[in-house]
Amino acid sequence: MSPFTGSASRTPDWQHLRLAVDDGVATVTLARPDKLNALTFGAYADLRDLLAELSRDKSVRALVLGGEGRGFCSGGDVDEIIGATLAMDTARLLDFNRMTGQVVRALRECPFPVIAAVHGVAAGAGAVLALAADFRVADPSARFAFLFTRVGLSGGDMGAAYLLPRVVGLGHATRLLMLGDAVRAPEAERIGLISELTDEGKAGEAALALARRLADGPALAYAQTKALLTAELDMPLSASVELDAATQALLMNGEDYAEFHASFTEKRPPKWRGR
Amino acid sequence: MSPFTGSASRTPDWQHLRLAVDDGVATVTLARPDKLNALTFGAYADLRDLLAELSRDKSVRALVLGGEGRGFCSGGDVDEIIGATLAMDTARLLDFNRMTGQVVRALRECPFPVIAAVHGVAAGAGAVLALAADFRVADPSARFAFLFTRVGLSGGDMGAAYLLPRVVGLGHATRLLMLGDAVRAPEAERIGLISELTDEGKAGEAALALARRLADGPALAYAQTKALLTAELDMPLSASVELDAATQALLMNGEDYAEFHASFTEKRPPKWRGR
Amino acid sequence: MSPFTGSASRTPDWQHLRLAVDDGVATVTLARPDKLNALTFGAYADLRDLLAELSRDKSVRALVLGGEGRGFCSGGDVDEIIGATLAMDTARLLDFNRMTGQVVRALRECPFPVIAAVHGVAAGAGAVLALAADFRVADPSARFAFLFTRVGLSGGDMGAAYLLPRVVGLGHATRLLMLGDAVRAPEAERIGLISELTDEGKAGEAALALARRLADGPALAYAQTKALLTAELDMPLSASVELDAATQALLMNGEDYAEFHASFTEKRPPKWRGR
Repeated sequence: MSPFTGSASRTPDWQHLRLAVDDGVATVTLARPDKLNALTFGAYADLRDLLAELSRDKSVRALVLGGEGRGFCSGGDVDEIIGATLAMDTARLLDFNRMTGQVVRALRECPFPVIAAVHGVAAGAGAVLALAADFRVADPSARFAFLFTRVGLSGGDMGAAYLLPRVVGLGHATRLLMLGDAVRAPEAERIGLISELTDEGKAGEAALALARRLADGPALAYAQTKALLTAELDMPLSASVELDAATQALLMNGEDYAEFHASFTEKRPPKWRGR
Repeated sequence: MSPFTGSASRTPDWQHLRLAVDDGVATVTLARPDKLNALTFGAYADLRDLLAELSRDKSVRALVLGGEGRGFCSGGDVDEIIGATLAMDTARLLDFNRMTGQVVRALRECPFPVIAAVHGVAAGAGAVLALAADFRVADPSARFAFLFTRVGLSGGDMGAAYLLPRVVGLGHATRLLMLGDAVRAPEAERIGLISELTDEGKAGEAALALARRLADGPALAYAQTKALLTAELDMPLSASVELDAATQALLMNGEDYAEFHASFTEKRPPKWRGR
Repeated sequence: MSPFTGSASRTPDWQHLRLAVDDGVATVTLARPDKLNALTFGAYADLRDLLAELSRDKSVRALVLGGEGRGFCSGGDVDEIIGATLAMDTARLLDFNRMTGQVVRALRECPFPVIAAVHGVAAGAGAVLALAADFRVADPSARFAFLFTRVGLSGGDMGAAYLLPRVVGLGHATRLLMLGDAVRAPEAERIGLISELTDEGKAGEAALALARRLADGPALAYAQTKALLTAELDMPLSASVELDAATQALLMNGEDYAEFHASFTEKRPPKWRGR
């Protein structure tokens, strides 16, 4: 959404995921269906770099993140990641884990809403990618498993110990992160982990429809709403109220606010410009 | 609740809302029923100033905030606020948005519990006023709509991006603030946005009964409970535990704690003094 | 879990509670069933000191906290605590309230998961002890009552005004702490206050089974998950992601992570060492 464009052009081809952009809606698909879209070093790095590129591209107004085949994402690949990290030295281990964390920060900090379209398994890092999205649109086959402790690691991976208590409360988050048990769609909806539950097989379609609505709407208002939600989790009430006031004063100078009033007065739908 | 009374007397008449005080219970009614109690500049300013006055008045022990007519409050008036802000310069816009934020801070920081009695629509700023209350007593007709993005503004208005995730979790809050869709009473109750669901048409009555209970009870204990809940959202565990210890030691020197013990020993109900 | 053992040996006998340790699982039982396990000064002091001792003992990997007889814990004893505090001076009152807060901090900060096994009443300080545990395993007879205001005190006792909003959201927490009304098992489960609801009379058994699973599992991974959940409630996203990365890099050098990979490759269950 930034109007300041550097000279770097967008990378045309990505090897570890599939990217499509259609009139403001970017779709990123994890496309390794024979491995349940298990993540590799390359996939993490591509997600990190792609999100940075898309964040600089003012034409992108909403992003859908989904998985091809039987599920969303089974997490880090047992062979290509767990096996490989066992041979790494400390500096390299830290670098790897910082990279995965950067993906989560990019999802929270990019200037457009992110919609995870979840069907089937969202496990390990896959569950955290969905958690870091703004919306989780899921069908009844969805199941979330923060299974880090099952491989001997901390449940607090990639910001999960920060994010999950703020989404489902500390009690549920402790249970999910400590035990790594799978949470099926009905429970996930009940505890607030699912934003929209769709019919079987319809998560992708519903996620795209939501992305279209967001991309065609007042995109700057959406971007600021996301930025404030992200920032104010870490801010006191008094400063949050001041940030809201400054943001709202800014947007009241914007084109979309004037357009709303004009359309209301003229009894017609608004034509949002996203600015 | 403050025992330190300045020389200013309470303003006898308010033009933009209706005030009644009955034996410790203040009732503030938004009374513009032909406009669904849409807020005007005057109404915001009156709420800000009235809450400041009531906070200095030690006789007030609970406050009910309700709306006259078909609904609670439809939010900022399209003509009188949206239209007028379009003609404002930046300094004035900031001042307006700071004023609305001051109302929310006053609701969170006043030394008595606030009960929103919600029936029908609580939209935009009306939804945030209800959100900033300590209790939301609502009937089945209640519907909450944080519809700021619908007019091209940020969903984070008047502290909503701070408060709503702390009430319903980040997932639901993102959906509600980003999309501005209406949340009806059953969903509002399910996600924790309603404190008490009443029978149809009974929100006002139930809110008053709760206010009466609070005003007749150990009011200083209630005031401190509210103050700690508000403060500890912004504090770490260790400091919160210390603040609790100091507060409890203070109240253990108070009259109501001794009265509880005396009444328990004498097998009679306590006569609370609120101090 | 600390490998650094001081020269102090563990206290063999505790007068105000019952302690058993069985192969990594410590069981602490409030054992004053004729008084519904009402807490005394001695019981608080024993809990504080015992938790400190157990935290230094690397053989303890999970703790179950339960109550003997008809309920979990009815809170501070009316005679032995409320009566006695009425005669205390300010310094002593502060010292008492700091002690109770230290018990809560010890429960949140000890290096092993704590499971509260709740049946019958968990009231006042008893409700907060359960709240400070990592898991609340409860049967249908469980009822939680944060009844501090009922005795003229602040609902924010022992960190409750910090913890409860982070477990059940600010709306429910305000209602529970302000009013002190009892919350029965079905509602407690619905709002996220119960981690696992068992059949009637089975809370203790289920809590022990969960403790056994945790003690036999990757205990260092569990300990770090708990530590991160506790710490990241008080940390911003960016720092949380960095802490997660450092923690994960650390555990990737650990024995259990290598053991997981070996067991997976050899198609056998892992033999966890807890390190």
